[in-house]
Amino acid sequence: MRVNRLKQLQLEKRVAVNAWISMGNGYLAEVLGHCNFDAVTVDLQHGPYGFDQAVHLLQAISATEAVPLARCAGSTLAEINKLLDAGAYGIICPLIDDVDQAAVFAASCRYPPRGARSYGPARGLLYGGSDYLARADDQIMSLAMIETSNALDNVERMLDVEELDGIYVGPSDLGIALGLGPDAWSDPRMKAAVTHILEVAHARGKYAGIFCGAPDMGEDCVRIGYDLVTPGNDVQLLRAGAAARVDGVRRAAAGHSS
Amino acid sequence: MRVNRLKQLQLEKRVAVNAWISMGNGYLAEVLGHCNFDAVTVDLQHGPYGFDQAVHLLQAISATEAVPLARCAGSTLAEINKLLDAGAYGIICPLIDDVDQAAVFAASCRYPPRGARSYGPARGLLYGGSDYLARADDQIMSLAMIETSNALDNVERMLDVEELDGIYVGPSDLGIALGLGPDAWSDPRMKAAVTHILEVAHARGKYAGIFCGAPDMGEDCVRIGYDLVTPGNDVQLLRAGAAARVDGVRRAAAGHSS
Amino acid sequence: MRVNRLKQLQLEKRVAVNAWISMGNGYLAEVLGHCNFDAVTVDLQHGPYGFDQAVHLLQAISATEAVPLARCAGSTLAEINKLLDAGAYGIICPLIDDVDQAAVFAASCRYPPRGARSYGPARGLLYGGSDYLARADDQIMSLAMIETSNALDNVERMLDVEELDGIYVGPSDLGIALGLGPDAWSDPRMKAAVTHILEVAHARGKYAGIFCGAPDMGEDCVRIGYDLVTPGNDVQLLRAGAAARVDGVRRAAAGHSS
Amino acid sequence: MRVNRLKQLQLEKRVAVNAWISMGNGYLAEVLGHCNFDAVTVDLQHGPYGFDQAVHLLQAISATEAVPLARCAGSTLAEINKLLDAGAYGIICPLIDDVDQAAVFAASCRYPPRGARSYGPARGLLYGGSDYLARADDQIMSLAMIETSNALDNVERMLDVEELDGIYVGPSDLGIALGLGPDAWSDPRMKAAVTHILEVAHARGKYAGIFCGAPDMGEDCVRIGYDLVTPGNDVQLLRAGAAARVDGVRRAAAGHSS
Amino acid sequence: MRVNRLKQLQLEKRVAVNAWISMGNGYLAEVLGHCNFDAVTVDLQHGPYGFDQAVHLLQAISATEAVPLARCAGSTLAEINKLLDAGAYGIICPLIDDVDQAAVFAASCRYPPRGARSYGPARGLLYGGSDYLARADDQIMSLAMIETSNALDNVERMLDVEELDGIYVGPSDLGIALGLGPDAWSDPRMKAAVTHILEVAHARGKYAGIFCGAPDMGEDCVRIGYDLVTPGNDVQLLRAGAAARVDGVRRAAAGHSS
Amino acid sequence: MRVNRLKQLQLEKRVAVNAWISMGNGYLAEVLGHCNFDAVTVDLQHGPYGFDQAVHLLQAISATEAVPLARCAGSTLAEINKLLDAGAYGIICPLIDDVDQAAVFAASCRYPPRGARSYGPARGLLYGGSDYLARADDQIMSLAMIETSNALDNVERMLDVEELDGIYVGPSDLGIALGLGPDAWSDPRMKAAVTHILEVAHARGKYAGIFCGAPDMGEDCVRIGYDLVTPGNDVQLLRAGAAARVDGVRRAAAGHSS
Repeated sequence: MRVNRLKQLQLEKRVAVNAWISMGNGYLAEVLGHCNFDAVTVDLQHGPYGFDQAVHLLQAISATEAVPLARCAGSTLAEINKLLDAGAYGIICPLIDDVDQAAVFAASCRYPPRGARSYGPARGLLYGGSDYLARADDQIMSLAMIETSNALDNVERMLDVEELDGIYVGPSDLGIALGLGPDAWSDPRMKAAVTHILEVAHARGKYAGIFCGAPDMGEDCVRIGYDLVTPGNDVQLLRAGAAARVDGVRRAAAGHSS
Repeated sequence: MRVNRLKQLQLEKRVAVNAWISMGNGYLAEVLGHCNFDAVTVDLQHGPYGFDQAVHLLQAISATEAVPLARCAGSTLAEINKLLDAGAYGIICPLIDDVDQAAVFAASCRYPPRGARSYGPARGLLYGGSDYLARADDQIMSLAMIETSNALDNVERMLDVEELDGIYVGPSDLGIALGLGPDAWSDPRMKAAVTHILEVAHARGKYAGIFCGAPDMGEDCVRIGYDLVTPGNDVQLLRAGAAARVDGVRRAAAGHSS
Repeated sequence: MRVNRLKQLQLEKRVAVNAWISMGNGYLAEVLGHCNFDAVTVDLQHGPYGFDQAVHLLQAISATEAVPLARCAGSTLAEINKLLDAGAYGIICPLIDDVDQAAVFAASCRYPPRGARSYGPARGLLYGGSDYLARADDQIMSLAMIETSNALDNVERMLDVEELDGIYVGPSDLGIALGLGPDAWSDPRMKAAVTHILEVAHARGKYAGIFCGAPDMGEDCVRIGYDLVTPGNDVQLLRAGAAARVDGVRRAAAGHSS
Repeated sequence: MRVNRLKQLQLEKRVAVNAWISMGNGYLAEVLGHCNFDAVTVDLQHGPYGFDQAVHLLQAISATEAVPLARCAGSTLAEINKLLDAGAYGIICPLIDDVDQAAVFAASCRYPPRGARSYGPARGLLYGGSDYLARADDQIMSLAMIETSNALDNVERMLDVEELDGIYVGPSDLGIALGLGPDAWSDPRMKAAVTHILEVAHARGKYAGIFCGAPDMGEDCVRIGYDLVTPGNDVQLLRAGAAARVDGVRRAAAGHSS
Repeated sequence: MRVNRLKQLQLEKRVAVNAWISMGNGYLAEVLGHCNFDAVTVDLQHGPYGFDQAVHLLQAISATEAVPLARCAGSTLAEINKLLDAGAYGIICPLIDDVDQAAVFAASCRYPPRGARSYGPARGLLYGGSDYLARADDQIMSLAMIETSNALDNVERMLDVEELDGIYVGPSDLGIALGLGPDAWSDPRMKAAVTHILEVAHARGKYAGIFCGAPDMGEDCVRIGYDLVTPGNDVQLLRAGAAARVDGVRRAAAGHSS
Repeated sequence: MRVNRLKQLQLEKRVAVNAWISMGNGYLAEVLGHCNFDAVTVDLQHGPYGFDQAVHLLQAISATEAVPLARCAGSTLAEINKLLDAGAYGIICPLIDDVDQAAVFAASCRYPPRGARSYGPARGLLYGGSDYLARADDQIMSLAMIETSNALDNVERMLDVEELDGIYVGPSDLGIALGLGPDAWSDPRMKAAVTHILEVAHARGKYAGIFCGAPDMGEDCVRIGYDLVTPGNDVQLLRAGAAARVDGVRRAAAGHSS
């Protein structure tokens, strides 16, 4: 089976940089896969697209070196299995709040006897290889999102769930849950929580990823020690690129007309 | 009929800034329409999508303040009419080389007796308004691309075609035609050609737009006096945004691990 | 944030007229948005289309004055959040049967601390505006469908749920539940139930909408005092329009051949 | 091969009633196919959709009794062959102006030696049957649109083209060409032209169809003797159906509030 | 209502042969519907496509003689109702483990008072006919998948659920559950389990179907007495067809070059 | 730039085996790309899908080792450039009849000064690599279809066109042109023509491919010396695979019931 490069980077203690797709277009997915990212995540929770589009995205990412990940819309066996069968090499699951939810989610990513996944790996077999069934449980990553007060309270026990590979922090919801609003990276309470979650994960040898929409947050989280950082989603990247170019032209226009 | 804001800006001698869609996704089109552009162009020539996707893009742009434009794949009445019927307020036509081609293209954007357009403006009527037939010929803009040696030789006569509203320069193909390659903005011969085309257009009261992929080229063309500039396409903007964020994180990672 | 015009109409005690999309096509959505409706509802329960199509519909409605609503396929946080993030300004949720279901549904439409919605409003931000997070809870409407015997029994307590904005009656299922069949508008028991539900809602200051497939039912429900009526879905409207024209032509043909 | 029912109706001197799809949705196509039409036309000229969508429409129509027709965007062998291969049983071609264009168009609908069609009938074989190649030339109908001044001048010679099956009148463009505007049915000059075209066609045993957007125009054209009438497109039918229901409700609302 | 031919075959004690769609394309669905299958199943569990695509498939199957079935991704009322409304004549539901799950699933396929289905049968009405509501409960088939250890333990009680029409065996998951791996048809324990399930079903007059990916397994299961067999999915059929032709050519090439 | 493996095979005098996609689904494309084919062709001429779907297919093929080819619907610069920009590494163009058509087609596949291709290689750059412009003219293959009487007469002069890389024989149309019908492989006149075309091509060092729908025709053409053979399209492969399995089951059923 094709090796999950995120696992290799983890072993080598090298950070993974992850892209995030909100705009559901296959060519965009392929472009991002050529932008020096280690992974590209298909976001079915907040990205305004559905499963038919997600398959195109996973196929497009497969034509690049980046590892295809997916954030499911919710924790259901049906959706998670469809994404894995479509070739995702890891699932980020939103709103996991307690140990039961963590266990159910983790089981959705494993075949029996370790989990509840149903067999029929369609594209997974093409992308992964013919020994998919034997090795998928060890290559596929399950990352539970920590983004509510309950999750913060339960994070230790959640990370004790053996089949759960790690966590992924959702700072916007977490900031709202802490009463700090969605853009709270500069607040020390936010940083404390984010650091605490990482320590809990690493103490158990688990993987830790985080979404870093705010400027410099990606750099900060690398220094804190996160295994994977997502420096903003595609819309943020596009807007930043557009603003730089449009502002330049508008300034030239202002100077020209004055 | 809804007024074509590009025509207003032209009257006010204000430059228009145009976005360019290569990644065919409706949400992306809507995001760009909220990025301080005056127009957004659906590119059916080099953009890897077809007409079904183009309609979604035009609908998405219609939900913003930006003027919806389209570059057709080629100069055929069938395709141009479909794009206008789908709500485009201007057509940029590639590879127009001589006065006959310019006349045929311009006629494709006008109803009889001024042109050859067939009646049935579907979305055009919804977006433009109930007096579409009476006013479309004056609101819809036809811009012929000047991007070959022949076009450069014929540009004066082409711009004498009454129903042609203006030109749009394609610097990559023009640079290749001049033997300078696709990235020739720094070459004085390129700037001379681009300046000459503008002078020919403005001498006849015609509109002049240009694609500006190279850094600072948008600013340069504003100063030269172009009416509309396109500061790179969506892929360039996305890549620039991605590079800035990824590079920052990778530098932090290099510092962290060292 | 863009104001929800349905809330304004409610304040002005003016009825809202709502269109209903079963045929998942963006141009159709835009056409209906120009047909003098106050709102247009994307129906993911019985409409034969999925989420990818629903996004196109919401974008198309956004290019018109009509308020974009959605009926979800079922009461799950994942689906409801996706629809709100995609720009829906109200959710009609089928088969809400008791106070617990009503509370869970209503919470799906509100951000913490009032509810359980996860932050990431994608198109919602574009359509609504930059203050979306602060104001969405007050602009987005949650309407629970009353269409079963249980719901009828529990309607008072359901409408006591503070975060629930109102109800929407599904007369076909309600008629079947009452043993009257799906087309029972002429039956006094049906009218009594529909009137009772409205009184319960209005007694609590809550919003009341209803689907009115039967002829004259829309008019009747306006007189009863419903805040929003849906005079049939798009298929019914298309069929009525087709029948009128086809019958005319067939009659002429019969006369001509005789 | 499945028989083309329009040919049967022609033999029986019975008028065919045709639906017209501008809103590219498969369920809509299937709904129209159950609305007592004899044929349903997929419109690629003014309908805002492309070929990928057209295939869905042709498949949906195939699940009904209606004959699947298509209007191509223009007269190219490539597009017409794709539509026939996708199962269309007749092609309506816009803007045929003279005998050469008529001959080229007609040849696009026939296999050698009668025409230029390339072999590979994909869905045509499924829908038509295994003897498709032997019988398609006699079942597939080619109808040239008469909608310009030139076409009006040349209609006799055009209809002398042996392989051309008939004509289809486009009254909007024809009205514009005659200087009467797109809604000129009430003008006697329009009726004279439409009657003349029919006489030319029937004198040569050719088929004659016409688009009848105006009220009562379908009935008029049946009486004149047209073989096929299209009583408006789907948008007109939907709008008429919507207006009837919305107006009723709005009147009730006005009465209720007064 | 159009009769469910699978029920007729059952009465006549004739086996039904079923096709299985993993590759979500409408033309493929139509091709399979012309390949001498009695039914064609749209697979939303392991097939890498979503609901928007499933509707096209169901429409395409409707243009053939084959009975349209669907395997849902999971047992939710929302998804099952959407598939039935879209015209499926039977639902195969994965991972039904006990009598409660069997009862909930069966109820999802029936209207009240026999079940919980909501009324609004869209395409079902077009495909089935105008008496759909009265007769659907008797024509639509609900088949619970037996594919886990729990299901094997509970199969008798599950088949006692009155509204459940039968079962469908998933041998890959069942083999894994039995510790035999996904390709265990040659193992006597597998055959014993498959025979036992059939006997339990037939003892109660219930329907029994099975997926037969392995060579000869379809023939074996016909002899055992299964009512419906699926001799591999579309990918297996395509691969077998490709291997035969490619191997022939490669052998010829090897001979030619030697 | 990624090397075109078909050119390598040609140098090594090894035959290439090519798959052919009529059923426009990305997963199917990926499955075929894993079936031991050297190339996979996207067929826009007879395949019932359009450009939007073609892009998905090319992306899916890119995730495999197979070389992505495309057959355009017709010889227009616009369509051919779109396919090349979308990543096709070769174009098969139907119905090329004489030297002028051959020259125009070949020029569509080359950048100036060798041809007329416009610069903007979108996906081509991602799939091919950053030196695409410098090397594409030598990697991209242009193959003119020989399938009419005229083409047969002109094949020598056509193959003298320097920029044309070779030919591809369409035996169905060629058989019809020769008066032998579409399935004429067993006729010696057909074999003579096919052999003659190959000799003309190889005499000029040009590439020769052929579609081989008939059984054993692929093997025959390998022995004759063709560089590339297409042993049937995907529909033929699927049908063959289905027939084998269905027939087996039906025979078992016949034996069982007798």
